[in-house]
Amino acid sequence: MSVLQGKVLVAQGGGPTAVINQSLAGAVLESRKFPQVTRVYGALHGVSGIINENFVDLTEATTHNLEAVAVTPSSGLLSTRDKPDVAYCQEIFKVCQAHDVRYFFYIGGNDSADTCRIVNEEASNAGYELRVIHVPKTIDNDLRVTDHCPGYGSAAKFVAQAFAGANLDNRAIPGVYVGVVMGRHAGFLTAAACLARKYPDDGPHLIYVPERPITKEQFLGDVKAAYDKYGRCVVAVSEGVVGPDKKAIAEQFTGGERDSHGNAQLSGTGALGDLLSGWVKNDLKIKRVRADTLGYLQRSFLGCVSEVDQFEAREVGEKAAQFAIWHNRDGSVAIRRTGDYSVEYFLTPLETVARVATEMAPEYIVPEGNNVTEAFRNYVRPLTGTMPLVARLSAPTVAKILKK
Amino acid sequence: MSVLQGKVLVAQGGGPTAVINQSLAGAVLESRKFPQVTRVYGALHGVSGIINENFVDLTEATTHNLEAVAVTPSSGLLSTRDKPDVAYCQEIFKVCQAHDVRYFFYIGGNDSADTCRIVNEEASNAGYELRVIHVPKTIDNDLRVTDHCPGYGSAAKFVAQAFAGANLDNRAIPGVYVGVVMGRHAGFLTAAACLARKYPDDGPHLIYVPERPITKEQFLGDVKAAYDKYGRCVVAVSEGVVGPDKKAIAEQFTGGERDSHGNAQLSGTGALGDLLSGWVKNDLKIKRVRADTLGYLQRSFLGCVSEVDQFEAREVGEKAAQFAIWHNRDGSVAIRRTGDYSVEYFLTPLETVARVATEMAPEYIVPEGNNVTEAFRNYVRPLTGTMPLVARLSAPTVAKILKK
Repeated sequence: MSVLQGKVLVAQGGGPTAVINQSLAGAVLESRKFPQVTRVYGALHGVSGIINENFVDLTEATTHNLEAVAVTPSSGLLSTRDKPDVAYCQEIFKVCQAHDVRYFFYIGGNDSADTCRIVNEEASNAGYELRVIHVPKTIDNDLRVTDHCPGYGSAAKFVAQAFAGANLDNRAIPGVYVGVVMGRHAGFLTAAACLARKYPDDGPHLIYVPERPITKEQFLGDVKAAYDKYGRCVVAVSEGVVGPDKKAIAEQFTGGERDSHGNAQLSGTGALGDLLSGWVKNDLKIKRVRADTLGYLQRSFLGCVSEVDQFEAREVGEKAAQFAIWHNRDGSVAIRRTGDYSVEYFLTPLETVARVATEMAPEYIVPEGNNVTEAFRNYVRPLTGTMPLVARLSAPTVAKILKK
Repeated sequence: MSVLQGKVLVAQGGGPTAVINQSLAGAVLESRKFPQVTRVYGALHGVSGIINENFVDLTEATTHNLEAVAVTPSSGLLSTRDKPDVAYCQEIFKVCQAHDVRYFFYIGGNDSADTCRIVNEEASNAGYELRVIHVPKTIDNDLRVTDHCPGYGSAAKFVAQAFAGANLDNRAIPGVYVGVVMGRHAGFLTAAACLARKYPDDGPHLIYVPERPITKEQFLGDVKAAYDKYGRCVVAVSEGVVGPDKKAIAEQFTGGERDSHGNAQLSGTGALGDLLSGWVKNDLKIKRVRADTLGYLQRSFLGCVSEVDQFEAREVGEKAAQFAIWHNRDGSVAIRRTGDYSVEYFLTPLETVARVATEMAPEYIVPEGNNVTEAFRNYVRPLTGTMPLVARLSAPTVAKILKK
């Protein structure tokens, strides 16, 4: 096998995560070890930076700079919401050719995998040797093939810690608390709220994910049952939760704004939380009802990272460089769970990850559709790593004197 | 001076904080050292637990249990929104008398200080020896006399880290981001968002606090100027921000719900954020506008604590026991800043802290009313402690080939 000499190009696409720069640092530092790599370029703002040739030369970034960026959340190379079509990908390919790029690593979700697939095809059709690797990243955990996605574990840890705190707060001053979590089609991130439960009466008492349609009647019945049982109720709900018509309940409240992918805006608004808390106040006549929308903190909060996630995000970046430069392969880096808890990495064809996203398996959701199962808990627990300690006072009750 | 023998009673009132149980553990563990203390009781759900005699015997809590509770956010003894009047305080006093309580430590804000003041008066009028100490706690930092309040530093750290992340996210995918922070009358917590700025173009670019009324025109003018300058804009705004009529802008959107203190509900709804982002979308025609309401995470998030805050919260609890049991004094424990950074604790009369809250000093807010000053930054920085590292890539730009 002849050695393919040329440049490496790295870019980051889609929503940032807490560990996306671990993958960047992994890919860059590993690439710089190979003598056939002439330069390592980074494109600013993802694919839009490629077609505009907005590159920085990461060959000249210090290792210490890359290591400091690695622990900084949100795309160090900045990002884009562009979702390239074939013509756009042809532009990408032309720029790669002009700059003698022979290795292209794109860190992103299933749309980014599709970009990788098309660019790879264009190069192949033109007879130009271009190795293309998709490096997985998403807080939604909705990529096919891989056991889980880098970025998910840290976001899941944030959600779990947010609900652990909300549960303690709700226990101190009882009422109904609704926390809205990111996730348009996949409920993985919302489901991670289950890790907030330690004591048997801890919340979230109810968890709703987009995979299971809900009705207003079911929701209010569930909240009432929990409130009657515990004197309080904590609810975790996905922003993308749907009604019986399979349409997002939040969608009618967003003023019709759509992102560049044609999707209705669900995040960055408190509308769904306010709608659900309105239902509880008006129909159940419960006075203290509060709704929070966890919002962009879930993917960007500084200082809440899963160690496992951080480690794996680094390794998928390193593996991308190894698969492409050592082994001359194209594909998407995926994670296989091999033990409890151990993993190995493998390369899956780009078309197996591109475009179509995945959802939670049915065995992860209880039949009633209002909570997650032990199977899911076992799946998610290793991914978030250690949770901070939570403890309740343990002391005997004192006999009353005046109110005997 | 004769030794006053009897029980200690501890309770927690108002909104929880991340370090309120440090004060609890400090007061309990310190009290248990004194031979004249016959028992240490904890009242469940604040003053409402006192009048209902819902006590636990913390003399029998293990030290390890108390230490574990100390690092757990949100009131370990649970809380209440009750704001006792004189009749209510007479009930409290009667229960103290019946249980031979001679030391009452109430951890809370200015309303709790007022409860302490009245109970102390009732005991004095009855000729019953009852030492009453108010232990300060609030995320709003709005207590008089003290330099700052335990609980504030950790909430401020959460806000700073949230905006640091939001700024990184906003830089990666530019647009306008509005983050709504707790604070009905005092802007201290919102102002702490300034600590998110590291690089000169970092957000938040604008900070609005309740101390300075804003108009829609000023707000939109400020956002436009920042957006024109940076190509993006991050805004931190207090939930209690007022219009020219000095009324909370959020108030008209809460459906008129009022808490037990007669205040309009500002937290637990995304209405203000959605209103402000609507202004930006409609008037400035900026497409990507997102609003988050930081909500209850600010005071309850598990795993974001300022070390300084934790330390001081512990000490004000310990000092409460020492002032009362050693020195036979009543009052509110306060913090005096003595160096950069060092503090000492002192006791201030209950009436100097009770009822009336305080606000940010004028020198902490810029004349334009849309940001904070260096003086505030110097004030707040030691209180939040170390922030996680944030770094940008540092690498040379590559010359374009196709788009020269």
